[in-house]
Amino acid sequence: MPNTPKAALEGSVHHTQVRVRFGDTDPYGIVYFVSYFRYCHRAIEDFLRACGLPPETTFKNVPEGFGLPIVEAWGRFRRPSRYGDLLRIETRIQEVRAKSVLFRFEFYPETGGELLAEGTATLVAIGPDWRARELPGRITAALSQGK
Amino acid sequence: MPNTPKAALEGSVHHTQVRVRFGDTDPYGIVYFVSYFRYCHRAIEDFLRACGLPPETTFKNVPEGFGLPIVEAWGRFRRPSRYGDLLRIETRIQEVRAKSVLFRFEFYPETGGELLAEGTATLVAIGPDWRARELPGRITAALSQGK
Amino acid sequence: MPNTPKAALEGSVHHTQVRVRFGDTDPYGIVYFVSYFRYCHRAIEDFLRACGLPPETTFKNVPEGFGLPIVEAWGRFRRPSRYGDLLRIETRIQEVRAKSVLFRFEFYPETGGELLAEGTATLVAIGPDWRARELPGRITAALSQGK
Amino acid sequence: MPNTPKAALEGSVHHTQVRVRFGDTDPYGIVYFVSYFRYCHRAIEDFLRACGLPPETTFKNVPEGFGLPIVEAWGRFRRPSRYGDLLRIETRIQEVRAKSVLFRFEFYPETGGELLAEGTATLVAIGPDWRARELPGRITAALSQGK
Repeated sequence: MPNTPKAALEGSVHHTQVRVRFGDTDPYGIVYFVSYFRYCHRAIEDFLRACGLPPETTFKNVPEGFGLPIVEAWGRFRRPSRYGDLLRIETRIQEVRAKSVLFRFEFYPETGGELLAEGTATLVAIGPDWRARELPGRITAALSQGK
Repeated sequence: MPNTPKAALEGSVHHTQVRVRFGDTDPYGIVYFVSYFRYCHRAIEDFLRACGLPPETTFKNVPEGFGLPIVEAWGRFRRPSRYGDLLRIETRIQEVRAKSVLFRFEFYPETGGELLAEGTATLVAIGPDWRARELPGRITAALSQGK
Repeated sequence: MPNTPKAALEGSVHHTQVRVRFGDTDPYGIVYFVSYFRYCHRAIEDFLRACGLPPETTFKNVPEGFGLPIVEAWGRFRRPSRYGDLLRIETRIQEVRAKSVLFRFEFYPETGGELLAEGTATLVAIGPDWRARELPGRITAALSQGK
Repeated sequence: MPNTPKAALEGSVHHTQVRVRFGDTDPYGIVYFVSYFRYCHRAIEDFLRACGLPPETTFKNVPEGFGLPIVEAWGRFRRPSRYGDLLRIETRIQEVRAKSVLFRFEFYPETGGELLAEGTATLVAIGPDWRARELPGRITAALSQGK
């Protein structure tokens, strides 16, 4: 996180709660790693909405000629979560660049500060030709101020 | 299945195999009922493909002005299947009507004739206005001859 | 719904909200019928929790020797919902029998009374041998009074 | 991939085909990044099976006292795939360590050598206490020789 003051980051933390649902686990009752990535997307959606950016017109926006696909994602799964658990996700923007934005996620139990899982996701702005383009100004502005 | 000769039905049985995957079970290792419906859709896709109907241009076809959404589905889950099991799906067209087609699915173990689960799904032809319309003639013809 | 007074049913309506998420649609942006069944399970979980029955010890309870698998499900999908939509689910118990319970679901838009989709799901009580058994008394009691 | 001769790696390439299914895309018809991680798990399952290791007794094995959870995963999504596409996954073991194994995945179109997506997943051996332990000898042996 070079060049990003800690205070600015703290200002943009968004909290999302997810309940581990019946189809989210592996056959042994532990949250399937794939489900964490689904939760991350949900956290991005909630983050965007909190910034005034409706996901429905932010991930793809034909009138304004841009899309925001996820081009890279990473996750580390430290401790098992189980069916019925309530997870607390802390979502931050780690970096806003000219053409992309990097989200960071931390998963905690409902109460307590033990890190259960963490991850990142990179979204790149593309044009109608699927080539990278600059993030639209209004998107950068909305994301930079956090929620 | 009124008015449909048994022989005609038998001619249109299509066999699909699905493996129960890691994310397909409930927290206790038993196939989640929702996964059976997903398997049913996969069986429809394979059935269509075997009839010469690519699903990508059959469920929605803008140039020809039709869509084929699933408007009703039903399933009964008789015996548990588990992670790693190989399931054999028998897919039949139970009835082709003017504006809709009714599929029937039976799930069996890899070997043996014990019925594990069964279900149905109804697809209705709609036009660009989302109103029911007649099935395109080429679709009816392809489905009626089965695979 | 024979033998069930309307007032009793109305007393047991439970409301759940679900947001249509990024992975819940078909390739054309319309909610995939399979997702509705997933939403139904979520509605059951919320209903049980509102009755004081934690799903984690209700769908399978080894100490008390019972399980409550879904053995039958049905859905009718009347109008399309789309990515980002907020759906309101009304969940009712349609019938409590000696060995099973039948849930009924109705999906409405966030505001307005237009029925988008409806469905049912039957849960049967089984013992450790997977044979049907009577619903445990405390389950019947909790379900019968609704939330 | 330090210290791993190229020939050894080539010996252990496993090929899996996946079809992009109806529920695998985002609302715009492009494969949802979460689905790639699901495909990766499927590729691991097929790889294990080709090594003589049934996934059902390899991801968790109570009699032998070990589990093999995925503790880290990464993916980069380079080009869009769409509903109905047939993807070719090349799965390799990038490294076998004392307590963990690192898989690498490359996604290609049905024909052609254009890299669509790539990823990695790390599996760690744990004991009944969820602490890392050495990989069981028979697992290491089976994985080291590849399929």
